[in-house]
Amino acid sequence: MARIPFETVQHVVTEAFVKAGMNEQEASVCARVHTESSCDGIYSHGLNRVARFVDYLKRGWVDPNAKPSLVKKLGVIEIYDGNRGPGILNAFHATDRAIAIAAGQGIGVVTLRNTTHWMRGGTYGWYAADKGYVAISWTNTESCMPSWGGKNTRLGNNPFVMAVPRKKGHIVLDMAMSQYSYGKLQVTRLKGATLPFPGGFDKEGNLTSEPGPIEESMRILPMGYWKGSGFSILLDTLAAVLSEGLATNEIDQIKQGSCTGCSQVIMVFDPRQLGGEEFTDKVADSVVDYVNSSTPAENNREVLYPGESTARIRKEHRANGILVDEGVWAEVLSLAGRSA
Amino acid sequence: MARIPFETVQHVVTEAFVKAGMNEQEASVCARVHTESSCDGIYSHGLNRVARFVDYLKRGWVDPNAKPSLVKKLGVIEIYDGNRGPGILNAFHATDRAIAIAAGQGIGVVTLRNTTHWMRGGTYGWYAADKGYVAISWTNTESCMPSWGGKNTRLGNNPFVMAVPRKKGHIVLDMAMSQYSYGKLQVTRLKGATLPFPGGFDKEGNLTSEPGPIEESMRILPMGYWKGSGFSILLDTLAAVLSEGLATNEIDQIKQGSCTGCSQVIMVFDPRQLGGEEFTDKVADSVVDYVNSSTPAENNREVLYPGESTARIRKEHRANGILVDEGVWAEVLSLAGRSA
Repeated sequence: MARIPFETVQHVVTEAFVKAGMNEQEASVCARVHTESSCDGIYSHGLNRVARFVDYLKRGWVDPNAKPSLVKKLGVIEIYDGNRGPGILNAFHATDRAIAIAAGQGIGVVTLRNTTHWMRGGTYGWYAADKGYVAISWTNTESCMPSWGGKNTRLGNNPFVMAVPRKKGHIVLDMAMSQYSYGKLQVTRLKGATLPFPGGFDKEGNLTSEPGPIEESMRILPMGYWKGSGFSILLDTLAAVLSEGLATNEIDQIKQGSCTGCSQVIMVFDPRQLGGEEFTDKVADSVVDYVNSSTPAENNREVLYPGESTARIRKEHRANGILVDEGVWAEVLSLAGRSA
Repeated sequence: MARIPFETVQHVVTEAFVKAGMNEQEASVCARVHTESSCDGIYSHGLNRVARFVDYLKRGWVDPNAKPSLVKKLGVIEIYDGNRGPGILNAFHATDRAIAIAAGQGIGVVTLRNTTHWMRGGTYGWYAADKGYVAISWTNTESCMPSWGGKNTRLGNNPFVMAVPRKKGHIVLDMAMSQYSYGKLQVTRLKGATLPFPGGFDKEGNLTSEPGPIEESMRILPMGYWKGSGFSILLDTLAAVLSEGLATNEIDQIKQGSCTGCSQVIMVFDPRQLGGEEFTDKVADSVVDYVNSSTPAENNREVLYPGESTARIRKEHRANGILVDEGVWAEVLSLAGRSA
């Protein structure tokens, strides 16, 4: 592992995206999001995804020149077609529109259809919270997991995000519907380790904490068993219904990489027009204090609220450089036309 | 177990609520909800809860005469104070207002603060879906479960509901944040059985499927471990922020039974003003078909969508009478001033 300063990482990733056909300004926005994800310790959607995004651009699965177009406006709701443009730019456009509507009317709901991978879902929650807004958002995805009680892959991972602004640190949940990602299974297998809790079924239908047999069967476990399965189904249906877009079963037909053609919902509230900033902060502090003051369980030192660990990693990486895998960094340098 | 016709159950429960001080019309609405819950097989919030609700009325924890009062109106958002009136009546008022706003503007968001137990959360999802609306709603509650990594009870069960209308049967998710309810632990223990999957930690911090030790430790498991814990924290914070109401840590101070003083969010969309009824139905059908056509896992016959099993039980109970526990039914009859 190496330590690379935030600015260097963003600069190099920008170069890679410019070389792949994006304009400087948009490349820089996308690069910032990938850099922030690695900086926050969300490696799965940070530098690890740069090569894949470049590949999608080259294949024409993501159109670097496409802009979102308004499909419908209905009061505080706006529906956009993402036209398969870069998912990050589309999702920021949607979040900015939702914030602008909420600034005027207390709430804004913007949906996107026919967009592409927005990378880390939490990005848009942190972004809204930084501007003082509450956010709820989710995307549907291609399928990666069986429905509860089924064998074959039918449900999307459908990341779901909720964010509440708080002066001492936003409360942000960013949660996919599977108990573990395939990335986590792979990393655990390569270490020769087992998962902390069962992560899926082997081919014979036995629940197991061994990553290898789950990767083979592709029967990863929804979080909370039937609960995560049901939640994934509803998030998918609502994303498609509210965006007039595609559901997971239709995204599965596209076969142009992860999330191409997906549907997203971004909902923003302005707490300043509700109880006010001070009240919101008071509520958020009281929730955080209640959680933080828990007696730690055995083998545990402290009890954290959602977003707390992320904020710590961010601070440490900002101070000392982002911890990056040297192989991944070499790949990014090469995409930027630099030598490692 | 006995079989009692729906109408008889509702009639007797209405009598019990009238005897407890409610007017005939409101008693009948509350009785219908308790009856529907038992009819749908959701026994935990059906007849089983009648005696407890009557007890709350007698203690003055629920005020049968209180009406919700408007705190704030902000575009498509309305905030009400429930004034500790009957939770069912308050939640219907909020749902009806959200539907009325959505009918005009595509979306309606109504929040309730200072309300009381709404009984089964799914009630309001099914109700909105029956009228052709999409619904997302949740409540916060008193704490019943530790935060992930903590020992003591700090998180609410915060039931979360999502509903999508569908001609062949609505898709409805009604999910609490714990993997199992205390009711499920009790029933399992009384049968001398173990839970199908681990449901919590014993006093020593070992994960266990034995209900008894979990009831003793009160360390029930959030669904999906850290995921359900985080989701519960965000649902709580948002419910309080959006209703200008109380969070779980404040509800815990009230100590007037379950959910007294809680905060709720009811969000309704009109799909007829978005993609239209036909499109919504097509999406919902495609999602359902994808799930239903899964290859069943070992020891399983069919793969169901959320709400499917409920709709089947409802149909069977409507045809043959609601299956009721004779002890519970005797208690309800006695509260209605009848002999068993």
